[in-house]
Amino acid sequence: MDNRLARIGVEQLKGRVISAEEAAAWIKDGMTLGLSGFTQAGDAKAVPLALAKRAEKETFKVNVYTGASLGSNIDTVFAQAGIVNKRLPFQSDPVMRRKINEGAMLYTDHHLSHTAEWIRDGVLGPVDFAIIEAISITKDGMIIPTTSVGNSPIFAQYAKNVIVEINTEQPERLYRLHDIYDTGKHEGRLPIPLTHVADRIGTTGIPVDVEKIRGIVFTDQIDSPSMIVPPDSETEAIASHLLELMRSEIRAGRLTEKLAPIQSGVGSVANSALHGLIDSEFHDLEMYSEVLQDAVFDLIDADKLRFASGSAITLSKEKMAQVYSNFGKYEDKIVLRPQEITNHPGIIRRLGLIAVNTALEFDIYGNVNSTHVSGTKMMNGIGGSGDFARNSRLSIFVTKATVKDGKISSVVPFVSHVDHTEHDVHVLITEFGYADLRGLAPRERAGLIIEKCADPAYRDQLRAYYEEALTRGGHTPHVLEKAFSWHQRLAEEGSMREQ
Amino acid sequence: MDNRLARIGVEQLKGRVISAEEAAAWIKDGMTLGLSGFTQAGDAKAVPLALAKRAEKETFKVNVYTGASLGSNIDTVFAQAGIVNKRLPFQSDPVMRRKINEGAMLYTDHHLSHTAEWIRDGVLGPVDFAIIEAISITKDGMIIPTTSVGNSPIFAQYAKNVIVEINTEQPERLYRLHDIYDTGKHEGRLPIPLTHVADRIGTTGIPVDVEKIRGIVFTDQIDSPSMIVPPDSETEAIASHLLELMRSEIRAGRLTEKLAPIQSGVGSVANSALHGLIDSEFHDLEMYSEVLQDAVFDLIDADKLRFASGSAITLSKEKMAQVYSNFGKYEDKIVLRPQEITNHPGIIRRLGLIAVNTALEFDIYGNVNSTHVSGTKMMNGIGGSGDFARNSRLSIFVTKATVKDGKISSVVPFVSHVDHTEHDVHVLITEFGYADLRGLAPRERAGLIIEKCADPAYRDQLRAYYEEALTRGGHTPHVLEKAFSWHQRLAEEGSMREQ
Ligand SMILES: CC(C)(COP(=O)(O)OP(=O)(O)OC[C@H]1O[C@@H](n2cnc3c(N)ncnc32)[C@H](O)[C@@H]1OP(=O)(O)O)[C@@H](O)C(=O)NCCC(=O)NCCS
Ligand SMILES: CC(C)(COP(=O)(O)OP(=O)(O)OC[C@H]1O[C@@H](n2cnc3c(N)ncnc32)[C@H](O)[C@@H]1OP(=O)(O)O)[C@@H](O)C(=O)NCCC(=O)NCCS
Repeated sequence: MDNRLARIGVEQLKGRVISAEEAAAWIKDGMTLGLSGFTQAGDAKAVPLALAKRAEKETFKVNVYTGASLGSNIDTVFAQAGIVNKRLPFQSDPVMRRKINEGAMLYTDHHLSHTAEWIRDGVLGPVDFAIIEAISITKDGMIIPTTSVGNSPIFAQYAKNVIVEINTEQPERLYRLHDIYDTGKHEGRLPIPLTHVADRIGTTGIPVDVEKIRGIVFTDQIDSPSMIVPPDSETEAIASHLLELMRSEIRAGRLTEKLAPIQSGVGSVANSALHGLIDSEFHDLEMYSEVLQDAVFDLIDADKLRFASGSAITLSKEKMAQVYSNFGKYEDKIVLRPQEITNHPGIIRRLGLIAVNTALEFDIYGNVNSTHVSGTKMMNGIGGSGDFARNSRLSIFVTKATVKDGKISSVVPFVSHVDHTEHDVHVLITEFGYADLRGLAPRERAGLIIEKCADPAYRDQLRAYYEEALTRGGHTPHVLEKAFSWHQRLAEEGSMREQ
Repeated sequence: MDNRLARIGVEQLKGRVISAEEAAAWIKDGMTLGLSGFTQAGDAKAVPLALAKRAEKETFKVNVYTGASLGSNIDTVFAQAGIVNKRLPFQSDPVMRRKINEGAMLYTDHHLSHTAEWIRDGVLGPVDFAIIEAISITKDGMIIPTTSVGNSPIFAQYAKNVIVEINTEQPERLYRLHDIYDTGKHEGRLPIPLTHVADRIGTTGIPVDVEKIRGIVFTDQIDSPSMIVPPDSETEAIASHLLELMRSEIRAGRLTEKLAPIQSGVGSVANSALHGLIDSEFHDLEMYSEVLQDAVFDLIDADKLRFASGSAITLSKEKMAQVYSNFGKYEDKIVLRPQEITNHPGIIRRLGLIAVNTALEFDIYGNVNSTHVSGTKMMNGIGGSGDFARNSRLSIFVTKATVKDGKISSVVPFVSHVDHTEHDVHVLITEFGYADLRGLAPRERAGLIIEKCADPAYRDQLRAYYEEALTRGGHTPHVLEKAFSWHQRLAEEGSMREQ
């Protein structure tokens, strides 16, 4: 007997093993798919790739909902094949990004904590097929996910049909890593009982109506590794300002050396910032975050991190090999939860997180743009940054002060798109320093942001804008006709710098 | 014996009765005051007014923190006297608004659910004097607030000194109306046990260290009545579109005729919208809101409303007389809570509210400006609108499609300030119709917003902008150099209309 069948605990399901192509053939034009996958981790791989292959001979379109971004080239081939009508709630693929910005496909980026609510409430319409990567199906009919949980529980619960991809290359030791909690419908909803990052409040797998499992596909393709951008002098400076901020919070009696549970956003800047903790005096750290990147495991290795709760594990090639060959070292220190729980506003608020997310640009009053290059071109999406920034005890945004060889200033008079309003942005950090904006009125913020965060090469220009704005008056002074002049100059002259 | 002393349950406090002038004399230049008061209800009146009087002879400035806006002319005289260094978290006074926009005083508008956290965490610095209006102090040393709770519990708990204004004209029957719950510090915080709008989870009064009560002042000035703007044909049309939306949600199986608990924002438009429910088929309604305005009591009278939870009761003159002379009819149907609880993201999400708030303007992609006229001049503040819009099951923004005799379109190419991003705005309603934006990509939203919500007199202009924007491409197409041209035209020519 195929000993992979031992992974299927429910007898009646053993006859439902099919090929990826057979499963993909069930999917019809106009359907909505709910795919497992969060930041390249735990994505269903075989069926989506077989589906894209069908597009060589057929014309069809589907809606693709996921946890967050996919790896394994899926968004790339989906975009190239032109089979996506609407993508939701997050992606970060360069090819798909181009299609979105050309208007060739629809994209709804969504607070990552909100999608499950909209599925449950029927706002997003029915999910025809949930396609979930798993390490196994248990005897009592639970799907054990792999390296991410994301939206898989809600997809499995609400989809009309479920396809399970059992990935035999994903480490079986991931079993018992997951904690699946369902809030249920609004009516009669109880408080979510989680009060510490390490609490287990749910089941070890995704409960599912096994009758809905129409097919099981065996796969063995591992997750795409993440690209680790090594720290550079700017990200190191950002990390050291972050440490300075923490120390100042401790001196003010607002934090202890244990800090508070940390959330760290996606991207290389946030990862470097987290890395900065390794050689610091801080200890007994806890994380309550979305994605557990390399830095999290480095912190465990350095005996700095007590516990990390996330929705996915996304690692570089080297780190992946190291972590999974030695998983016993980590398994008691990690839990993976549905993104509705990792990003839940009530839990984030209750735990009092320190949130570190990344801005593309911010303005002199502290509004942050994390998504739209020059106000129009989508980079990735808001992801969970809104969930965390709004509800955390301390909401920090980091970015380099300039990009593209200094041609673009990340500090601008008026952000070209707002993802996070001034209210949700407590501290801004660039390589030049940090601006603590808490409690400050707009006119107090402007000077601080310009002098602490902007690149010196842009400070005069910013000061000139602000001074002119002051002559116009108002609570938040602006010169509206010049508000986007920096972005226009960039478009016309290739640089935001005045000649 | 002065029978007012019976209102002071703690023997040792009876000797601390002083005049408002004596109490006001304790306040020194540079101090921070935490005043009771929320939307003109339950504000400390005598001591603040005595303090403003001192400014006739003395120069000093204080920081003034409250629940929300004050009545009784306090913000007016404070602004005129020039004694406010910084005001936080909300105000709506025309004189103060002018000073803020002139830069003559600082104003930090703040999500109303956040201020208590910042006091507790020490982010806002110490509060020197809490000045709290009360109906009495109980034997066990609890302050019983009057017509609002707001931030009074957190001020009383964290202030160095407390002054209590016992207002003998506020109805004593308010006793047992309040439910005071304290989340405590982040460390070790438990889930807030509230699961239904009517749940009582705390104490009937504000627990306070009686040693901190330095003075008690007797007063008898009633709350300022609210100005009720009668519905007009536009607000009636908005109300009827709101009912249509509810009916369509019921048809889709997303709501029942009981609806879901409703939050209704401040302002005349939101009040009229609520009023529209009176003659509707909906029944057994519940509210979980900030301010309970006239419409709430009208709904109780009409036997439509089962229960209303709020942080303040703000009524017109006529309604105030009627409600308080007949309070037995209402007292079992109402509870007042701290604004940290009425506006708590976790509770709002748990209960699955329907939120109705007001926009000044919104743009073709659904971003909302509720605070800044032409991007610079503060109107009131964000108040609780962000708490509710982000976390509700259904987040609705209402506004008239034009104001100032059609010279200003409330639908613009690009909002001049963002309070609520596209993610937090589910449905937009004007007198012309509603646009349901849930799940839509930006390019799907633009057409819908223009055709359903904009005044027909502005639709061609909006279509022309959007069409030009499409030629530039992007996920969220814009013509940046024209984004604020409508606001510029208004400033230069007195109207947004193209000639
Ligand atoms: C904002 C975000 C794109 C930054 O990513 P990052 O990898 O940390 O940052 P980088 O500095 O490498 O920037 C990424 C790219 O954006 C470019 N960029 C940065 N700021 C820019 C700006 N103001 N204008 C134009 N381009 C900009 C960089 O040059 C870089 O381009 P490249 O790929 O061509 O080199 C990313 O963090 C993100 O998508 N955030 C939103 C979602 C989120 O925060 N999730 C967190 C919850 S987990
Ligand atoms: C947005 C807000 C000001 C609207 O108030 P409202 O009383 O319902 O609405 P109105 O239509 O009467 O508008 C108020 C004023 O703003 C003006 N206005 C409205 N839209 C405008 C615009 N786009 N540009 C300039 N002025 C505008 C109106 O003309 C009116 O002016 P007036 O006082 O000179 O007549 C008010 O709801 C608010 O402050 N909201 C933010 C706080 C909040 O939402 N709290 C809710 C949680 S409780």
